[in-house]
Amino acid sequence: MNKIRLAIHGGAGTILRSQMDPEKEKQYLQGLTQALEAGYAILQKGGTSVDAVEAAVTSLENFPLFNAGRGAVFTHTGTHEMDASIMDGKTLEAGAVCGISNVQNPVQLARMIKEHSGHVLLSGKEAEAFAQKMNLPFQSDEYFYEESRFKQWQEIKDTDCYELDHTETKDEKKFGTVGAVALDVHGNLAAATSTGGMTNKRYGRIGDTPIIGAGTYANNNTCAISCTGHGEYFIRAVVAYDISCLMEYKGLSLKEACNYVVKDKLVKMGGEGGLIAIDNLGNIELPFNSDGMYRGWTQDGKAEVRIYED
Amino acid sequence: MNKIRLAIHGGAGTILRSQMDPEKEKQYLQGLTQALEAGYAILQKGGTSVDAVEAAVTSLENFPLFNAGRGAVFTHTGTHEMDASIMDGKTLEAGAVCGISNVQNPVQLARMIKEHSGHVLLSGKEAEAFAQKMNLPFQSDEYFYEESRFKQWQEIKDTDCYELDHTETKDEKKFGTVGAVALDVHGNLAAATSTGGMTNKRYGRIGDTPIIGAGTYANNNTCAISCTGHGEYFIRAVVAYDISCLMEYKGLSLKEACNYVVKDKLVKMGGEGGLIAIDNLGNIELPFNSDGMYRGWTQDGKAEVRIYED
Repeated sequence: MNKIRLAIHGGAGTILRSQMDPEKEKQYLQGLTQALEAGYAILQKGGTSVDAVEAAVTSLENFPLFNAGRGAVFTHTGTHEMDASIMDGKTLEAGAVCGISNVQNPVQLARMIKEHSGHVLLSGKEAEAFAQKMNLPFQSDEYFYEESRFKQWQEIKDTDCYELDHTETKDEKKFGTVGAVALDVHGNLAAATSTGGMTNKRYGRIGDTPIIGAGTYANNNTCAISCTGHGEYFIRAVVAYDISCLMEYKGLSLKEACNYVVKDKLVKMGGEGGLIAIDNLGNIELPFNSDGMYRGWTQDGKAEVRIYED
Repeated sequence: MNKIRLAIHGGAGTILRSQMDPEKEKQYLQGLTQALEAGYAILQKGGTSVDAVEAAVTSLENFPLFNAGRGAVFTHTGTHEMDASIMDGKTLEAGAVCGISNVQNPVQLARMIKEHSGHVLLSGKEAEAFAQKMNLPFQSDEYFYEESRFKQWQEIKDTDCYELDHTETKDEKKFGTVGAVALDVHGNLAAATSTGGMTNKRYGRIGDTPIIGAGTYANNNTCAISCTGHGEYFIRAVVAYDISCLMEYKGLSLKEACNYVVKDKLVKMGGEGGLIAIDNLGNIELPFNSDGMYRGWTQDGKAEVRIYED
């Protein structure tokens, strides 16, 4: 019987204990715990890692404090444009979607794309048509309305500024992406990531979340990875696949590969953020180079949730 | 003084000498030769590899027989949706765009995104607004009209079929993507790729062309790569960055890495296509696992163009 493992994140960035409201902190930890429970219940019943990461990310998407699904931030035009992806480490099959609105759970659409579209990446309004064909639930704009995110957008909407949700200097701290990685009882790895992107983003900007190899990657030979951070750097450094290659081609351990990429390579480039990783032996790593990362993991039935570095 | 090198492609696939019209063949070879001349002239004057790949891809985009820019194929709704990307191997800076219409030269927009947007990947109508802001030339739908491509679309438009431009079984053979890689006198590598995607494509499908690490990658430490083929497989295999990693982490030569990825790994996955590659020593590789690939290269002032395997 193989080990079962689950790790999740709810974004990385300038998350300081000194600036956190205790009530908010409790809510974040609750959101993480719920997502771990949703994913781990599937693994415990002998379910697949793909089902587990989909369930965990769905839970995070439904939780309004994380910037994905229901809690997605506002774009420059006051809409919500979401991206998501999922990858199966056994088959290397993947599905991803970018620039969609009103789809309740973008990660579920990514999975449908993986399994029913014949493609890997679909985009925009036309991807929403595919979601309708798959009978996925849609929600009105009101469902995605969150007052603090609206205010955050109002403050900068008449400027050329955009805000990485997780590196704000405002009082109200917000955070960027959600994701999950899992190892199931069958020994198969999977990864999924979902985001609402940057507040006040323009020009149809897409980050690393829907990019297989950058924000998401899974391969039974090596590891499963889900990233969060300043997406442009994660794309240019092909972060998720880089960790897999360092293991496969250079013989690094998961820990060595994660530390090198997140704490050395990305730092030198200027790329802030972090990632969650599980290898095919069941090792878990959750490295980040920012002040904090909303994260959690479950192994041997025991769940842990963390926000800050220590 | 460093060696200068340029290689280009105009798509790979079922390109058989037995089925090629001699007049068409001449035109294809002319299109490749023009693009080589446009790019190499820049390198000879001491220009940068980024300028050279942009010029070569611009030339290929302007040539109606290649599926990019002017020659882009028709989507399911009768539009042209184009993708492109560019990467600078010196800085690892990259720009890419997906799902745009009416922009005359998508590769030039990718470059503007790299240099002026603060982002890596922009999409759709909003990316076109950025192109307008950058004063890039736009063209009407008529400019992108090509009769044989229109017929190709008409034949399948009422079906769920889509056609990879380069693996048709119809009489009229069409081909998928264009790209260029270069090494300049300063020792810097660059890569660029551009495509019109699949005929009759739906749901905002995006292939590997605008995905840094999949369809395009450049890094002075290793190589510059531009891919063409069945994009879904190239995304899942993170083809361009895989070759770079095999060189950097496993110590393979460019030739060994190219042969392994294109002729072994992709073949086992079922991924048809090819790529062009130049390493930082000036070696050139142009591997493909399909019947043919429109390709050309210039070294030591001598230009060569090829279509078939032998």
